[in-house]
Amino acid sequence: MNTPKVPDIIIGRLPIYLRALQRLAEKGFDTTSSQELGERVGISAAQIRKDISQFGEFGKQGTGYNIAYLTERIQEILKVDRVWDVAVVGAGDMGHALARYPGFSHRGFRVTMVFDNDPAKVGQPIGNFIIQSTETMAEAIRQAGIKIAMLTVPAIAAQGVADELVKAGVHAILNYAPISISVPADVRVQHIDPATHLQRMTYYLD
Amino acid sequence: MNTPKVPDIIIGRLPIYLRALQRLAEKGFDTTSSQELGERVGISAAQIRKDISQFGEFGKQGTGYNIAYLTERIQEILKVDRVWDVAVVGAGDMGHALARYPGFSHRGFRVTMVFDNDPAKVGQPIGNFIIQSTETMAEAIRQAGIKIAMLTVPAIAAQGVADELVKAGVHAILNYAPISISVPADVRVQHIDPATHLQRMTYYLD
Repeated sequence: MNTPKVPDIIIGRLPIYLRALQRLAEKGFDTTSSQELGERVGISAAQIRKDISQFGEFGKQGTGYNIAYLTERIQEILKVDRVWDVAVVGAGDMGHALARYPGFSHRGFRVTMVFDNDPAKVGQPIGNFIIQSTETMAEAIRQAGIKIAMLTVPAIAAQGVADELVKAGVHAILNYAPISISVPADVRVQHIDPATHLQRMTYYLD
Repeated sequence: MNTPKVPDIIIGRLPIYLRALQRLAEKGFDTTSSQELGERVGISAAQIRKDISQFGEFGKQGTGYNIAYLTERIQEILKVDRVWDVAVVGAGDMGHALARYPGFSHRGFRVTMVFDNDPAKVGQPIGNFIIQSTETMAEAIRQAGIKIAMLTVPAIAAQGVADELVKAGVHAILNYAPISISVPADVRVQHIDPATHLQRMTYYLD
């Protein structure tokens, strides 16, 4: 399955559909419609039909989508029909929250390593892990073949750590540091910064 | 200052520019260019010039942008030239991380209340606060005039809590619960879900 021409904006909506489908399945539903999905995720039914049709014919006029089948196909498209090991770099409050985050299971991810540069933290437990030193990070990530990292280090350290992660083979970084980081073109970055997200909303407040 | 016709996608980029400008100021720079800003945030110089010009004339050909002035103007546009009180609902790991998050200061926000429905947590300290009961949440938020909340409750509780927050006067919700929530048209929601963000990147991995 390779559909490299699909716009990134559509790829970005697939995880939202997937989450809603999994929730419908948990509630015991077998089928759904673009209307029902749309109401749940706040996206128009027409947009959902258009997005999903990029990948083939999934729904039938009148009977809608088979939830289990569409779920499996989207998991396959997004490559979360497997479990990806993820490294957390930075064992502060946010690193702790991510290392213990219950929302990754059944969604394609598991945290398997946590790193920090503070000697007082190295060797301490965090979730099910022992915090490892960033000094041995590159080697540990390379050996384990880890492709995905979540970065929760201070802004000033973020670019340096990102560079090291990329050299060690990481190709996807979820960046919680409050700074934009630069990576080579073949590496993906997503930024999560609560202050930035809040600032996007205050514009609309009275 | 009211420019209601500016597309939301541009509003969404302003916090990124603001963050980069504040960082340049911390480093001691007085002026910057759309080229330099662009390299830092991964957005083209032309796009930055176009976005910023929506709000007036800020740069001069050849001399670039005055960082302090542009910072102040964007803060004013985004209404973060003031400090907004924020409520955190859900005192789990993520709620703890947000209640103690150091990145809100100087960016327009301060967490002033934390709520949980677990009697064992109510009354316990979290950051500088005492966890309050969700039973008294609506009244506390209404009395304090809080407009912004961060939601870190389980998926199953999220819609109910969001409804209560909206009734209490909240108009902007940063939703960390792994589920889409529905709100009235005059309420803003931003979703932060690390699994969703990761799934958007795995599509591109080998």
